Amino acid sequence: MDKQKAIIVLSGGMDSGVLLADYSRKVDFAAALFFYYGSKHNDKEMKCAESLAETYNVSLKKIELPFIGELFNSSLLASSDEEIPEGHYAEENMKSTVVPFRNGIMLSIAAGFAESADADLILLGSHAGDHTIYPDCRPEFNAAFAEAVKHGTYNHVKMSAPYSNITKTDIARIGYEIDFPFEQTWTCYKGKEIHCGKCGSCTERKEALSCDGHTDPTTYEV
Amino acid sequence: MDKQKAIIVLSGGMDSGVLLADYSRKVDFAAALFFYYGSKHNDKEMKCAESLAETYNVSLKKIELPFIGELFNSSLLASSDEEIPEGHYAEENMKSTVVPFRNGIMLSIAAGFAESADADLILLGSHAGDHTIYPDCRPEFNAAFAEAVKHGTYNHVKMSAPYSNITKTDIARIGYEIDFPFEQTWTCYKGKEIHCGKCGSCTERKEALSCDGHTDPTTYEV
Repeated sequence: MDKQKAIIVLSGGMDSGVLLADYSRKVDFAAALFFYYGSKHNDKEMKCAESLAETYNVSLKKIELPFIGELFNSSLLASSDEEIPEGHYAEENMKSTVVPFRNGIMLSIAAGFAESADADLILLGSHAGDHTIYPDCRPEFNAAFAEAVKHGTYNHVKMSAPYSNITKTDIARIGYEIDFPFEQTWTCYKGKEIHCGKCGSCTERKEALSCDGHTDPTTYEV
Repeated sequence: MDKQKAIIVLSGGMDSGVLLADYSRKVDFAAALFFYYGSKHNDKEMKCAESLAETYNVSLKKIELPFIGELFNSSLLASSDEEIPEGHYAEENMKSTVVPFRNGIMLSIAAGFAESADADLILLGSHAGDHTIYPDCRPEFNAAFAEAVKHGTYNHVKMSAPYSNITKTDIARIGYEIDFPFEQTWTCYKGKEIHCGKCGSCTERKEALSCDGHTDPTTYEV
């Protein structure tokens, strides 16, 4: 059977990175899409996305969304003076980092691009740990959006978030198993020289990458 | 009861224009969003959207989507050498004018903006005549997308396409009834000085605006 022709939303983080590695033998990638939407850590993410695309030999398309920084509110954005909160990811204070409907925007652009590139699958790396805070990472969002993508394209493009019911630690396990280069990924929301080790996203990365006695290859400030 | 706070996708065409006029007494408009995505008639549309926003006293936000011209295929785009087909709108040859998942992209940005602007309703002017050609104008697309918008926003933003089961002629009738300034709208896909009168979209406009003995106020080449 012919392999599916896929588009992946590649953020430069470990979730979509492992997904790219994991699926690079299962599908043919038409392209990876990286979105430059003005987050504080977007430059760091972009370097990682470039590096991963090279490692896995996938064409990387960079898409700029300047209107997000201009019109949307979120502490995650460089246009916001609000500090990135510290503490555990699942906590209420991380809510300020939500960029409204960001996944919907990225997925709809991926759907249009898939149709133009004659691809039939969109892959997204969202996982179960994202559900608590981000409404556009939840299974009911993904299911409805997948329906919209199917009906809204001639190709009946399929959208899949294969990790949406497993945790970041499970994703780390998959990555370790296939020798995924975690050092080529970026997680920290603060986007400084090295990972801060204190924000919600760093806390979650640390927990995941030190699972089962593994040594987390990341250098953290703290 | 408080009026709903709404965002409208305003293209500068007659469908979304009549919708703006029709709903200007029913809701409070937080903003109208105009998308500059590189179609051949985008400049003409933008002038009309500006004029309508002024007439109905709504704040107009212009959002540029340059990646569509760079990455997507469609004869509607200025980046395409392909000619806009002539003839009746419903015909197969109009398929080349589809911009893949364009409505999905505009709606997802409207959803993120609505959440940021604390609005609870998104209005879209797509109608029954669009269904034949454009998959992302069909009722099943709209229903699935509305579900995704509801689940993907904290506000449970509602998406509504009130004209999705009526024709362009019905929209013309609503417009004539409320003295809508049709001369402030643009339809022709070719985007020249005046409406060509021959492309599928002009043919459909002519039919609609000359309904019930009305005099179409548009000047056409043919």
